[in-house]
Amino acid sequence: MHTLHVELGERSYPIYIGRDLLQDAGLLNNHVPGSQVVLVSNETVAPLYMDRLRAALGERSLVTEIILADGEQYKNLDVLAEIFDRVMGDRHSRNTTMVALGGGVVGDITGFAAACYQRGVNFIQVPTTLLAQVDSSVGGKTAVNHPLGKNMIGAFYQPRAVLIDINTLHSLPPREYAAGLAEVIKYGLIRDEPFYRWLQQQMPRLLSRDEAVLAEAIERSCACKAEVVAADEREGGLRAILNLGHTFGHAIETAQGYGNWLHGEAVATGMLIALKLSAQRGWVEAGEVAALRELLLSAGLPVAPPEDMSAAQFIDLMGRDKKVIDGRLRLVLLRAMGEACVVDDVSEEELLALLEPLAS
Amino acid sequence: MHTLHVELGERSYPIYIGRDLLQDAGLLNNHVPGSQVVLVSNETVAPLYMDRLRAALGERSLVTEIILADGEQYKNLDVLAEIFDRVMGDRHSRNTTMVALGGGVVGDITGFAAACYQRGVNFIQVPTTLLAQVDSSVGGKTAVNHPLGKNMIGAFYQPRAVLIDINTLHSLPPREYAAGLAEVIKYGLIRDEPFYRWLQQQMPRLLSRDEAVLAEAIERSCACKAEVVAADEREGGLRAILNLGHTFGHAIETAQGYGNWLHGEAVATGMLIALKLSAQRGWVEAGEVAALRELLLSAGLPVAPPEDMSAAQFIDLMGRDKKVIDGRLRLVLLRAMGEACVVDDVSEEELLALLEPLAS
Repeated sequence: MHTLHVELGERSYPIYIGRDLLQDAGLLNNHVPGSQVVLVSNETVAPLYMDRLRAALGERSLVTEIILADGEQYKNLDVLAEIFDRVMGDRHSRNTTMVALGGGVVGDITGFAAACYQRGVNFIQVPTTLLAQVDSSVGGKTAVNHPLGKNMIGAFYQPRAVLIDINTLHSLPPREYAAGLAEVIKYGLIRDEPFYRWLQQQMPRLLSRDEAVLAEAIERSCACKAEVVAADEREGGLRAILNLGHTFGHAIETAQGYGNWLHGEAVATGMLIALKLSAQRGWVEAGEVAALRELLLSAGLPVAPPEDMSAAQFIDLMGRDKKVIDGRLRLVLLRAMGEACVVDDVSEEELLALLEPLAS
Repeated sequence: MHTLHVELGERSYPIYIGRDLLQDAGLLNNHVPGSQVVLVSNETVAPLYMDRLRAALGERSLVTEIILADGEQYKNLDVLAEIFDRVMGDRHSRNTTMVALGGGVVGDITGFAAACYQRGVNFIQVPTTLLAQVDSSVGGKTAVNHPLGKNMIGAFYQPRAVLIDINTLHSLPPREYAAGLAEVIKYGLIRDEPFYRWLQQQMPRLLSRDEAVLAEAIERSCACKAEVVAADEREGGLRAILNLGHTFGHAIETAQGYGNWLHGEAVATGMLIALKLSAQRGWVEAGEVAALRELLLSAGLPVAPPEDMSAAQFIDLMGRDKKVIDGRLRLVLLRAMGEACVVDDVSEEELLALLEPLAS
């Protein structure tokens, strides 16, 4: 087992990465102070892993299991209200601990519920998808979606601990696994060129889910995220670079309705668009765009936006993004490979020149 | 104008108390950094004061006015969702400022909306009721109610500034004014016996809304609250004393349905019950119970729970309170006049002995 630390003063917490952590009672119970627990999972993950987690928790005075429907389209205020109904109905006190067992959707909505229930209760992340393990479970961003925009309603709320059991990845469907790889690739692109080059070489072994290569990829991804979050918890500056590809990606997700494109798929396409824009500005070589396209394709990720999305629709949806400040769109681009920057000077003309050829 | 400061490190903020602050453009605009503003009020307060606030804000690129229905029963997740729909629909960025103009309900729900919208935007409190001015606008507690319990879903989220314009109190209906006085009296009881004695003397002038006495009462109340909040922002300890009378009071509010008893009315009755329990334990003289009863009556406040509430119903509802930790009910009592303490050793028998004679 490897342990990383997210350094946030009194809100610091450990990330444990290893095998069979789900059934590690000692590890889990170190971070569950009271006798009450709320376990939140979804209908896909719960049948596979809930029993192990439940057994590891041992005897408790009150355990509520909440099984959500599976999918991004359920990460909304209505489902959040259902969670509150269950937790209130069972009379959980402010000393309860909410545990998210599942992917990013479960983690985001459970974390937001934990942030709001009685103005904040203990929270533990047990991510079971690659995407959640390398991205959404680390850093304290919690949220639900609004029909007009993704993650628009939420809180910065740090977990007490993150338990990453890499065994859970063996049950992950290939499409979701690939979606997680998109975020892994992102860390190389924004901050760590050697990691990116390593990923280009190791992709075949990553795709075969070689445990040693996988553990290394997760650890380097989490370390990158932990550093960025420690430097900028509430996204005042640096943290924005984690959104490479996300503004384009969110537009795709919103246009298609949540759940049709996976988040990682939309981010993959978004990253490629961002790299194209970076190349259009002369910051990276055109060959890098082709190489990223190839890497994404080899990972089984989409490299073009949906055919029915127009450039105008992109621009409209991006105008609703959280990264818009006082009317100016902020985009993450690459100043060089492994070096992200945030720009707010992209004109509508530049966007049209970029997006119109894509919307064929 | 007087200025108090709530000292919370980087979350510190000023409380301004004075006349005609609503139309003080300089004061307001010092705390509204961007060009976008969301003004939230209710159908009672908006016709009286919204124009002044709107004028003070001057030219802005985007101003959204949201007028809520008036009443505690509208402080819920559904109305919160309506606020998000409006703010999203108008495309407010994370640099927007949400301003709450109204009483505690408007302040609580607007503050919670500001805490959650894009994971947190600027927030300003402009409380127009006595209760909101001395209590709910100061300290960063925001929330909505759940059908099974009051303020169960919320966040600690500090405003950038609190503007208390005492002129607004002249339009306040007597019943709501009295409800605010309950919280003023609370500060004397929990922490400041000289203030309590002063209030016993000054009640006639307070009831006639003498501006000098009123300004003094508001300032001493806010100063007390600011001190307690600075010492314990997230209610780990000391802050709990601010809940004198609230556990009994919330039970009354929940039993009666939100909006039938005003919060301050329920707190008044709750404080009297808490003082009775303190006297029952020999901590304060029985004469103080009679004196508080007289003070509350003179202020026009209720001094007995609803006739149809049984002791069993009280105990059941109190079991759902946020102050319950791992099954133990925590109550604020008075160790002496002007000196609150928190106890968790009140038995069901002691509660029955206290509550059964009240439920006649």
